Amino acid sequence: MATLFKNFLAVDGEMAEGRYCSLRVEDGRITAVADKLAALPGDEVVDGERRMAIIPGFVNAHTHAAMSLLRGIGEEAPLMEWLQKKIWPAEANLTREHIYWGTMAALLEMAACGTTAFADMYFEMDAVVEASLEAGMRCAACRGIVGGERGKFEEGLRLAETWKAHRDMITVQLGPHAPYTVPLQLMQEICAAAAERAMGVHFHFLETEWELSYLRDELKMTPKEYLESSGILAAPYGILAHCVWLDAETVGAVDFSRMAIAHNPNSNLKLGSGVMDLTGLGGKTKKIALGTDGAASNNRLDIWGEMRCAALLHKGIRRDPMALSACDALRMATFEGASALGFKKKGLLKEGWVADLVLVDLDQPHYIGIGTENAAPFLVYAGSSADVYATMVNGAWVYRDRVFPGMDSEKILAKAGEMRTDLLGR
Amino acid sequence: MATLFKNFLAVDGEMAEGRYCSLRVEDGRITAVADKLAALPGDEVVDGERRMAIIPGFVNAHTHAAMSLLRGIGEEAPLMEWLQKKIWPAEANLTREHIYWGTMAALLEMAACGTTAFADMYFEMDAVVEASLEAGMRCAACRGIVGGERGKFEEGLRLAETWKAHRDMITVQLGPHAPYTVPLQLMQEICAAAAERAMGVHFHFLETEWELSYLRDELKMTPKEYLESSGILAAPYGILAHCVWLDAETVGAVDFSRMAIAHNPNSNLKLGSGVMDLTGLGGKTKKIALGTDGAASNNRLDIWGEMRCAALLHKGIRRDPMALSACDALRMATFEGASALGFKKKGLLKEGWVADLVLVDLDQPHYIGIGTENAAPFLVYAGSSADVYATMVNGAWVYRDRVFPGMDSEKILAKAGEMRTDLLGR
Repeated sequence: MATLFKNFLAVDGEMAEGRYCSLRVEDGRITAVADKLAALPGDEVVDGERRMAIIPGFVNAHTHAAMSLLRGIGEEAPLMEWLQKKIWPAEANLTREHIYWGTMAALLEMAACGTTAFADMYFEMDAVVEASLEAGMRCAACRGIVGGERGKFEEGLRLAETWKAHRDMITVQLGPHAPYTVPLQLMQEICAAAAERAMGVHFHFLETEWELSYLRDELKMTPKEYLESSGILAAPYGILAHCVWLDAETVGAVDFSRMAIAHNPNSNLKLGSGVMDLTGLGGKTKKIALGTDGAASNNRLDIWGEMRCAALLHKGIRRDPMALSACDALRMATFEGASALGFKKKGLLKEGWVADLVLVDLDQPHYIGIGTENAAPFLVYAGSSADVYATMVNGAWVYRDRVFPGMDSEKILAKAGEMRTDLLGR
Repeated sequence: MATLFKNFLAVDGEMAEGRYCSLRVEDGRITAVADKLAALPGDEVVDGERRMAIIPGFVNAHTHAAMSLLRGIGEEAPLMEWLQKKIWPAEANLTREHIYWGTMAALLEMAACGTTAFADMYFEMDAVVEASLEAGMRCAACRGIVGGERGKFEEGLRLAETWKAHRDMITVQLGPHAPYTVPLQLMQEICAAAAERAMGVHFHFLETEWELSYLRDELKMTPKEYLESSGILAAPYGILAHCVWLDAETVGAVDFSRMAIAHNPNSNLKLGSGVMDLTGLGGKTKKIALGTDGAASNNRLDIWGEMRCAALLHKGIRRDPMALSACDALRMATFEGASALGFKKKGLLKEGWVADLVLVDLDQPHYIGIGTENAAPFLVYAGSSADVYATMVNGAWVYRDRVFPGMDSEKILAKAGEMRTDLLGR
């Protein structure tokens, strides 16, 4: 089935200006973009009446979706204490059922905020992938590998085999958790396997200053030495989450060309980890995507919110109102995220690209004055995910006017609530 | 008419925990709070079914509401350039009609975000007050005084006379714009008049580092000397907006007890002004409220968003996840704002206090797990203004389920759009 969008203000992260135009979507792809397009027989016509924007779907480049069940646990504590005393003990009791329903609840939340794909590192990843496919959402899945035993690594390899027929919707990465949780030798094996099998990697890197001292004191390495000796830079593609304590000099001194950084500004603020040097790192890599991190450390799963936060935060920190433009922030939240997750031709409004789209209701007081010349700044600075009217993934609606066509939202809310009660009672 | 709220999760900025309870509202006041209350004949009963929260209405402690017409003008420029080249030339053409409709559009936006009162510094303030009264919103109004002539000062005094019969809904302050726009002698006269007439003051102070050098180089004063010699600290109450470059030592060395700081975190970030030392200043004053600043430098009028930003930002900047608790952020956004604006018994859910209330829809995935023990953290960290189901001011609905009982929203959107086009075409 085809969908014709007409009279929309279209803007993406590579357009210098917005454009009032029409888009045709067929078989999950954008097949035409033009000032005006005629409907063909059988087309569903969606008329934006020049009162809606159409933008590429948001991409959450780093999360742990099922942590939606752990939201609000251990608030206002430092990262390591929060992990060791609150999160890890609760996670030790997580079952496949918890993770399925926790992920489903997160999918409701993400779809309503305009997210179309997410990179997830967790356990019981088959349940995460199943939930994503049922919801119609793209997922970049990896089994989080913690500790020295090989079982989780093998699970990660198996995950890729299991879901390879779905590679349009599901990409699979290897997920070594972090330098301080995975022994270096296993890390090297994982990275070698990724290179061999053309798999991506997804990795937490230098989230806290403590990790910098761990590298120095325990591994006797600089960040540059770790990046090189681990083999991670040789993986075909990868997501390095956080990088709060990564410096521009290190990135400039290695071949970082295949790696993307997942910047999680709100989570890094909330846990007191600090502020990533976006301006410094961005100049070298340009591959910076945005993530929410898990719902227990944000506590929202809202990439629009991360986009606005990033766009404002770095201006303030650098004391430079030109530090990150609205257009660049939009590109990070869409195209850069899609690339980081291993999805091709996703994140721009171009013919032949996937139809992962967000419709935005502009008929609100905070959009008075929006037009082609200021579309991105209006959306990034004045807008919010509350303005999302609909979210389409691969040409199908996952959210439209407060309804989730592929998800039984009432049941999901009830089941996720039960799962949380059950988990925290264990 | 009375309203009975039952089965709501109630929380304010002074409650250690939330509470499932009922509230009775009569003649604009909360007249009872109890576990259960029986409806009296004629009561409107609103049943939250334990799926809604009730919190005090938000207060915007610093804005220029009619700047909603200037949103998106001159994005991504430094403050002084933005003011001098974009904002001030456009403002020079503002008429009473522009300001009325621009304020009305801002009121729609604020009411839908749960704001119940706002401190406004602008021109044609009678139009601002009229719009507020029509909308049913409380306003702390001041005529912005810029330059050395006395006309604007006298206008400010006259404004207080004109609206004194409405002091439940309208408070009036004197509004000397800033140290660099008002000659010191006039500033002293204004502050003396405020002390004499028991009026508040509303003032921009140390928004940018440049202002610090202005004090030093032009006035040959430290911030402490300026605060003391201007007489501002002797005003009965006052709002010092921004204070990004105010240090804790200065505040500790003067009698700051009657002054409140309006912290505008998103505006300060966006303009590259920096980050106020909330933790340092908060320890001395405790009177810190939250503002959005005008829509041209934020670009939202959403105190819930400022509350969340403040709660996260200072944790990250101080690298201390305990830097500002959710409960304290909620108090700043409600009670501290109300006090700063000169409204009494506003901002807490207590018997005898004004019925300025926000109802929050908790039947959403990001509230799974909310309860009495974590109500404030859930609302501050996971919630957003998109969750506002209704806003009540002085016992009357200003917004409920996407409808504005006191405002013709369609007409306001259309008129504000026309006004913007007219203004920018001049």
